[in-house]
Amino acid sequence: MLNIVLHEPEIPANTGNIGRTCVAANARLHLIEPLGFRLNEKNLKRAGMDYWKDLDVTTYIDFNDFMEKNPGAKIYMATTKAHKVYTDVQYEPDCYIMFGKESAGIPEEILVNHEEDCIRIPMLGDIRSLNLGNSVAIVLYEALRQNNFPGMNLEGHLHHLHWNV
Amino acid sequence: MLNIVLHEPEIPANTGNIGRTCVAANARLHLIEPLGFRLNEKNLKRAGMDYWKDLDVTTYIDFNDFMEKNPGAKIYMATTKAHKVYTDVQYEPDCYIMFGKESAGIPEEILVNHEEDCIRIPMLGDIRSLNLGNSVAIVLYEALRQNNFPGMNLEGHLHHLHWNV
Repeated sequence: MLNIVLHEPEIPANTGNIGRTCVAANARLHLIEPLGFRLNEKNLKRAGMDYWKDLDVTTYIDFNDFMEKNPGAKIYMATTKAHKVYTDVQYEPDCYIMFGKESAGIPEEILVNHEEDCIRIPMLGDIRSLNLGNSVAIVLYEALRQNNFPGMNLEGHLHHLHWNV
Repeated sequence: MLNIVLHEPEIPANTGNIGRTCVAANARLHLIEPLGFRLNEKNLKRAGMDYWKDLDVTTYIDFNDFMEKNPGAKIYMATTKAHKVYTDVQYEPDCYIMFGKESAGIPEEILVNHEEDCIRIPMLGDIRSLNLGNSVAIVLYEALRQNNFPGMNLEGHLHHLHWNV
């Protein structure tokens, strides 16, 4: 099962959106505190996030706590500072893909220990302009593609188009 | 240049988000009316969409108008009703990828004439749960990947990590 890790996410709508993507993609979500919002039932309900109950989500008090509780995790770090493009690595079926906060990305103190596993999404002019939720969706679905969409239906579809409507 | 087509989009934040992705991905955006919002300067400014000025965007009064003004366009249609998975087609460098409205997708009257070019994004249980902006990002970046990210910098990066911080 693939894993998405958000390091100190700031904007609740982004984390909500990413949670929804994780449910659709059968990925686990890991949230590293501090978060820029409270994950309580009232806020989740207000945001219409009824899919949150289907999400496999774990919260950690900091990056060290995450590392201790996921020993041996193979972690890719998405950053605009990476040398490698996200399509140039081979994602293991149980790897972790980590994204930093919206305003600043993953701190360099963390990146320096993982430089070979840093990945970036090509953009025109290398401006930082993709939304965090879209960045997660792009890399997660590349990892799913490489692993042949585990657990998902790839054979035709139950629906059929009507030829006379 | 790749092309994203939104058929009667309803939610302004989604179209704004997709416009931002198109700027980052060097794709053109085509909007087919009716839209669920007004694309005027005041609304764009209020939504903080200052990147909209960098976007190559065209609006059409209906699908026929779009077809007449883009003769010979190779169009892929994203729909949960498709038989093919979005990674199973070869995207031409100047193709069009079309998405329907948030509440209903592309109408069957249109899909029936393009059944061989319909594509879908695999999801767990085939529930419709990906946000429209994420769906566009996933398919658009697959098309970019297949075309080797035209016009984007793939060689290392200007930034370098500091090893002692």
